[in-house]
Amino acid sequence: MKLSVNELAKLLDGEIEGDGALEVYNINRIENAQNGELAFIFDSKFDKFIYNTKATTLIVSKDVVLSEPVETTLIRVENPYFSFLKLLNVIDSEKRKNRKNGISELAYISKEAKIGKGVSIGHYSIVNDNATVGDETIIREQVYIGENVHIGKNCLIYPQVVILDDCRVGDNCIIHSGTVIGSDGFGFLPMNDNTYQKIPQIGNVVIENNVEIGANVTIDRSTVGSTLIKQGTKLDNLIHIAHNVEVGKNNAMAAQCGIAGSTKIGDHNMFGGQVGIAGHINIKNNNQVAAQSGVASSVGDNELLMGSPAMDAKLFKRNFIAFKELAEIRNKVYNLDNLITKNYKNDKTKNPKK
Amino acid sequence: MKLSVNELAKLLDGEIEGDGALEVYNINRIENAQNGELAFIFDSKFDKFIYNTKATTLIVSKDVVLSEPVETTLIRVENPYFSFLKLLNVIDSEKRKNRKNGISELAYISKEAKIGKGVSIGHYSIVNDNATVGDETIIREQVYIGENVHIGKNCLIYPQVVILDDCRVGDNCIIHSGTVIGSDGFGFLPMNDNTYQKIPQIGNVVIENNVEIGANVTIDRSTVGSTLIKQGTKLDNLIHIAHNVEVGKNNAMAAQCGIAGSTKIGDHNMFGGQVGIAGHINIKNNNQVAAQSGVASSVGDNELLMGSPAMDAKLFKRNFIAFKELAEIRNKVYNLDNLITKNYKNDKTKNPKK
Amino acid sequence: MKLSVNELAKLLDGEIEGDGALEVYNINRIENAQNGELAFIFDSKFDKFIYNTKATTLIVSKDVVLSEPVETTLIRVENPYFSFLKLLNVIDSEKRKNRKNGISELAYISKEAKIGKGVSIGHYSIVNDNATVGDETIIREQVYIGENVHIGKNCLIYPQVVILDDCRVGDNCIIHSGTVIGSDGFGFLPMNDNTYQKIPQIGNVVIENNVEIGANVTIDRSTVGSTLIKQGTKLDNLIHIAHNVEVGKNNAMAAQCGIAGSTKIGDHNMFGGQVGIAGHINIKNNNQVAAQSGVASSVGDNELLMGSPAMDAKLFKRNFIAFKELAEIRNKVYNLDNLITKNYKNDKTKNPKK
Repeated sequence: MKLSVNELAKLLDGEIEGDGALEVYNINRIENAQNGELAFIFDSKFDKFIYNTKATTLIVSKDVVLSEPVETTLIRVENPYFSFLKLLNVIDSEKRKNRKNGISELAYISKEAKIGKGVSIGHYSIVNDNATVGDETIIREQVYIGENVHIGKNCLIYPQVVILDDCRVGDNCIIHSGTVIGSDGFGFLPMNDNTYQKIPQIGNVVIENNVEIGANVTIDRSTVGSTLIKQGTKLDNLIHIAHNVEVGKNNAMAAQCGIAGSTKIGDHNMFGGQVGIAGHINIKNNNQVAAQSGVASSVGDNELLMGSPAMDAKLFKRNFIAFKELAEIRNKVYNLDNLITKNYKNDKTKNPKK
Repeated sequence: MKLSVNELAKLLDGEIEGDGALEVYNINRIENAQNGELAFIFDSKFDKFIYNTKATTLIVSKDVVLSEPVETTLIRVENPYFSFLKLLNVIDSEKRKNRKNGISELAYISKEAKIGKGVSIGHYSIVNDNATVGDETIIREQVYIGENVHIGKNCLIYPQVVILDDCRVGDNCIIHSGTVIGSDGFGFLPMNDNTYQKIPQIGNVVIENNVEIGANVTIDRSTVGSTLIKQGTKLDNLIHIAHNVEVGKNNAMAAQCGIAGSTKIGDHNMFGGQVGIAGHINIKNNNQVAAQSGVASSVGDNELLMGSPAMDAKLFKRNFIAFKELAEIRNKVYNLDNLITKNYKNDKTKNPKK
Repeated sequence: MKLSVNELAKLLDGEIEGDGALEVYNINRIENAQNGELAFIFDSKFDKFIYNTKATTLIVSKDVVLSEPVETTLIRVENPYFSFLKLLNVIDSEKRKNRKNGISELAYISKEAKIGKGVSIGHYSIVNDNATVGDETIIREQVYIGENVHIGKNCLIYPQVVILDDCRVGDNCIIHSGTVIGSDGFGFLPMNDNTYQKIPQIGNVVIENNVEIGANVTIDRSTVGSTLIKQGTKLDNLIHIAHNVEVGKNNAMAAQCGIAGSTKIGDHNMFGGQVGIAGHINIKNNNQVAAQSGVASSVGDNELLMGSPAMDAKLFKRNFIAFKELAEIRNKVYNLDNLITKNYKNDKTKNPKK
């Protein structure tokens, strides 16, 4: 990026205090920003940085009252956080536009693939027979798109993603590097001689519109039918979604979660990092599951869960506080027990008729 | 796939009730099956679907007694689940046959590699110097096969697998996309200045016959000698196997498990998802470890383990039930303690000679 | 490798007892070593192997006293473990030298990339516009190096690593296969209609000198500024580092750890496998966190932590011992409670005025 303070102020509908001709090349966090960079102050607790930042320009709230003279150039805006998001989006869409390089001569595109308008496909990528790629989608470098795969419009598929045969991706999806869509579900028949016979997995994965999937995620194809990720759901990195799972709309799942086979998850749930969810259960809507929890049985709506196995988060916290003194509690119990047993015996001795 | 009901019935040795000329294009789960699809009923609790399914044909047990007229075409078989597995295997072997495309001109095969008969190698794959690929093995697209790697017969290596120098894979193995075999073990010597000196890892990974490895798994090469996965073992996705580990025969390990360095695992154990196993321990045979457990010390045979650190599963469950009321237990203990201490004091007051 | 016993003894400054003309082709662990292999004995408890090993030569301490005649050839050295490390390093540097194949004609190198002296780049690798690769760095096969990426001198980047735009890697770094550097941080703005709006992530990842990163790791780029891994830190496989995280110097982190967003970690900490660390906290220096722990709040210096949520390791262990008898403790408490309540009532009955 390269923007003058004047251009920035215009873009963010802000008012300049200082030199509008200065140029900035990068956004940084207020505590790290250097000459040539701009930074935002969202929160008055960072106002102190105004007076000694090395940033070329700061975007601050119009309500900030200055207590000392300021050397850096300020741009005052209505809501700095919204301005921040606006600027990020401007830069991001510029970057995406620059990625529209058309179709590399070093890619392999099957003659039987259907490629939409404005599609970009990077070097050493493969789009196999009967695959469909929607308009304006960007398939980056070294990507594998299998046979009969459908990818919608306006998607962004990062380098070294693998989407295997028959899987479907909706519109406006983003899939990050190293992610594998459509690996075989983990299905084996135990035999009498202790070996396992593979149960072939001939279903697929269906990813609806507006889904974002992080890096090095794995989503297994179903045995038959589809493993399903519904619209608007966001998955972080290194997540495992097993075969036959259904994840509803607008879920947010943090890194390293794992969902075992055939589980159904409703809409608008949030999962912390490293959460494990058992197979063949139902989790309805609007639940929140704390990091590292293990959900072992079905869950209704609007629950807050914690622990492994997971329970109501408040209950977990109360019990966990007690766990922190458990050794002490134990000692108290054994002391009491000794004392009572002794006294009780003493009592018996004293009152043998009791 | 494309099969007529007549062909299906012949394949599955079943009897048709309805129109044998109809064609089906896909298998689906009974609750989702549509026109042009077939579905199976394994269990009488799904019998109700017989009367209102949109599936073109249903494969049902010969023992199903119909209570109403049926519109869909039925195929009655001895054991629908075995018929299901049979059909999956037919479709799967058809798919595999279609993948036998020979050796891509866009692959890089070292002149010093030995490639067996009937081998397929996909676009942008690399088979490096002195590597050996057994007969009928399929190496899919964008795979990396390092120097001196041996791959047996009839293997299926999915796109973007990495098998690094000197590693060995047996016959009939399946390795899914994104998996890395032979990355360096995590070995460092702590130095006095708090830095770490790398301990080079010059061993390899040996994978025996009939092993299946999921997507985005990592198996590190040993320092010297071999990290070993014995025959028939099945690993799910995102598993980590550290250096010098030995995993015995016919183990099944669910996704996101991690085995720390130099641990030995015997035969026919089952590990739930996200299990962690400490380094330098022995786990013998026929054990089952529940999801998210942490096995911190050696384990004998035939155990059921749960918890982190793991203990006998029954013991864990009993204790965990108590944990759910721990805050309450704690309060009771403190109340009792107050009461007893007070009474005891009262007693002392009453019987000062005690 | 191929070395005569004479060459080995010279290399390790050792004294031969036996036939110096013999040749060895591999190092193995003492318990597995075969003819043509060499093995080391670091510890006197392995001395028994001296008398029946099939190894062609054993490297042993100069202090070993033989109790029986020995058939294998011995090389006596001052410190067998240091000799072992020396030999590993010799073999490793030989291997690395063999990897210096120059720049493959099958790689795509942008004309606007700056490639240092002695650089190797493998088949189907990509080095994009304005990327810089330092002298003597080896970029292996099928690697993706994005625009404006900087990679220092003497690095080793294994097959199928992805380093996305704008990220920086220092000197002497090793990055293993399947690792993704610079995927988007997981940042979304929750909207009133339950959907999430993406917060673009326009920062980068900065990796300092002497860092080693395992296989299938993900390190997300920051929203603005840098996700930072400082010098000398070693990361094992399948680790997730979220956006805006800062990991200090000389940390060692075992496989499958996850660090949530914006957390700062100081220097010289050790993390066991599958540890989770919450977002927006500070962990200072010289701490050790046991495997599977969950660090939920900030941590000072020199702590040993265990549990999820994590607490002082000694406290955890004491409490966990009590947890193992919790069902029993619970029963005791209820029994005591019944007893006391009854007795107390009895007392009341006896002394109604109390």
